[in-house]
Formats: sequence, C-alpha cells, structure tokens
Amino acid sequence: VKISELSSRSGVVSSTVKYYVREGLVSEGRRTSGNQTAYDESHVQRIRLVRALIETGGLSIAATKQVLAALDDHKDNLAYAFEAAQHALGSVGAAGARNASTDARQRIADLVASGDWTATGDNPGWELAARALDGLSTIGFEPSSSFLAAYAAGAAAVARADLDALDSRSHPDEITELMVVGTVMGDALLAGLRRLAQQNETAAVFSAVNERTKETQS
Amino acid sequence: VKISELSSRSGVVSSTVKYYVREGLVSEGRRTSGNQTAYDESHVQRIRLVRALIETGGLSIAATKQVLAALDDHKDNLAYAFEAAQHALGSVGAAGARNASTDARQRIADLVASGDWTATGDNPGWELAARALDGLSTIGFEPSSSFLAAYAAGAAAVARADLDALDSRSHPDEITELMVVGTVMGDALLAGLRRLAQQNETAAVFSAVNERTKETQS
Repeated sequence: VKISELSSRSGVVSSTVKYYVREGLVSEGRRTSGNQTAYDESHVQRIRLVRALIETGGLSIAATKQVLAALDDHKDNLAYAFEAAQHALGSVGAAGARNASTDARQRIADLVASGDWTATGDNPGWELAARALDGLSTIGFEPSSSFLAAYAAGAAAVARADLDALDSRSHPDEITELMVVGTVMGDALLAGLRRLAQQNETAAVFSAVNERTKETQS
Repeated sequence: VKISELSSRSGVVSSTVKYYVREGLVSEGRRTSGNQTAYDESHVQRIRLVRALIETGGLSIAATKQVLAALDDHKDNLAYAFEAAQHALGSVGAAGARNASTDARQRIADLVASGDWTATGDNPGWELAARALDGLSTIGFEPSSSFLAAYAAGAAAVARADLDALDSRSHPDEITELMVVGTVMGDALLAGLRRLAQQNETAAVFSAVNERTKETQS
C-alpha cells in the first residue's frame, strides 16, 4: 500500500501521516527499491485509531502516545490493561493540574461508599471526579446528594454496558483495544447524548411553562 | 487586591494570570499610582473559572474563550445561553475534524427517535455522539442496541439532574454560568465516576470468575 492509498483509506492526509510517524504514533513503512515507502493493513488500522483518539477523543499527541503504549504493552492481562489504559487516560488535560481538594475527594468517597462500589485508591477516576466538583465549586455550585446520585447511577449503567461489550470479543488484543478506545469514545458518546438529552429536558421544561402560561391566560 | 494575593486566592501563579490577561480571557486590572496593578473580586472569580475550564475541563485556550463569550453574551435568555454554550463546547477537540459518517448519524437519530427526544438538527451532540461511533468503528466495534440504550438512559438521567440543578439558582447570570460550567464539569464528573464504576464492575466479574473456579476446584 502506497502512502496515497493509506491516506485515502484512513481519511488522514499524507503530511499528517508523516507527522504521526515522526511522533512515533505509527511505525515506519518499509522502503522499497523505487525510493518509495510501502505500508500494510496494520498501518491503515493504526492510523484510523490515532485519528479517532485525536479528533473524536480530543486527546493530545502525548496522551495518545500513552494510550497506544498501554494498548501495546498489556495485551495479555485484562485487569492490567484496563488499569494501564485508565492511567494513561487519567492524565488527559491534567498537565500542570493541581490536586483535587480534600473536601471534594471526600464527597466522591461518600458517593462510592453509598453505592458499595469496589474501587482502589489509584483509580484516576477519583481525581477526575473530585476536580470536577472543585470546578463546580469555583462558581459556587455545591451539588446536592440527589444530583450526585443521578450521576453515579448514570455512570454505573454505562460501565455495565462497557463490561458487557467486552464479551462480544474473543481475542485478548481486541478486548484490550476495546477497553482503551471504548473508554475515550464512550466519554465522547456520553457527552454527545447528554447534550441531546439536555435539549430534550429543556424543551420539556419550556413546554410545561408554556402550558402554565396558557392556563393562566385562559 | 494585588497580583500576589490574586495568585494565592485563585491558585494560579502570577505568570499564568498575566498570560490569561494577554489572551483576553481575563480583563486587565487597574493601574495604580505606584506602577502596580489592582484587581478586584470579579478577577478572582473569573481566574478560578478559567483555571477550572482549562485544567479540569481540558479545554483549549480557544475553546475557553468561546465558552466565556457565550457566558458574557447570553446572560438574559436561558434557551439561547444553553445553545450558545453547547455550540462553543461542541467545538472542543474538533479542530480539523471531519464530519461523522451518515451511518453513524442515522444510528444516533434512531436512538433519539426511540427515546422520543426533542432535539434540533443544530445541536452539537449529534456530531459528537456520531463521531464517537465512527471512532469505535475504526476498531471494528459496532455497538448493540442495548449498549446504545444504556448510554442514552445514563445521559437522560444526568440531563434531568442538570436541569433540576438550575432551579437552585435564581439570578439569570448564575443560571447561565451553571449551564456552561456544568456542561464541561459534568462531562468530567461523569467520566471520573465511569472509571470508578468500571473498576467496580470489573471486580464483580472477576469475583464471579473466582467463585466459579473455587466451586470447580472443590
């Protein structure tokens, strides 16, 4: 496969393909006699994956590298792979970030305890969730227990679907790949559906207000 | 308030504060006679917000600018503000991104229709969710209807909590602020809780496997 075909099949322009190779995200092709470079199917697949992580997942080049390393290094152990992937993804947007406050971490700990969840201290979810509470706190919003419970219930339902999806794959490589890519893409899928659902809920609120207005006027 | 106090109260070092001002994310302080710059409470608040959006929300400077513009421009209309904020946030990580495939958009449309959701075509959630499906498709994973239904149910539960939370605020400025910051921080909170829930679900699967192994051995 020449670079032109690699580009058309992966939907990534040649200059970007070369950039990915230079950055070490994609392995180099094989030099052929005619001073050209030949790529194979694994390159097409890997470039599509890199594109998905960067464009849809919104990952930086550095975070993408970490995710790919987790993917390549832990193909044989489900628990390790998940942990490695979560750690790589946990660093997303965390460059130079401060630690979450003790208060915020305690609120997440209470939430996890109330759901009787098993989660170890090194899960990057603690920090991510607690820092989000700190972010809400900067605008003076302290979520109620019912707000947090709704988020926890939503996260639990989605996590169950994530685990069930792994059953659809038999090869360990494919299972690891789905864990890693599924974690990034699942966040994006959930964020997209949340925006659609917010509009639906807003419409429901407005229509209730309109109904009440009509009743008052009639 | 001097820059040193601004820095200690917002948790952002002076050089970063100056950078935020240069980038137009934060308004300039007032020059005092002693060739110093004085800041007020609104600066402290704004810098904390910028820090939360960038560090926890993982937004780029450009996306942060858009979110702040949405916040400043639509303080008076709930529906407009939400739409403006969603559009600004929809552009996150979308720099140079391609459009989602028709297939993926159709799957999201089917999902929205099955939930009887009201959502207009310009909601950025369509593109975000559909591109996530395309991302999963690059590794050969086509989600089942039950997988998508679980995500939709999770998103709906969270969106309801988001709307309910707006009731806790009375001033239009505060409502808009919570919509915008809540959209970014809510994604992060959900992502964090999802990682914790995934570990809990994985532990449940492993313990079930261990139980079966014990039974077989005894």
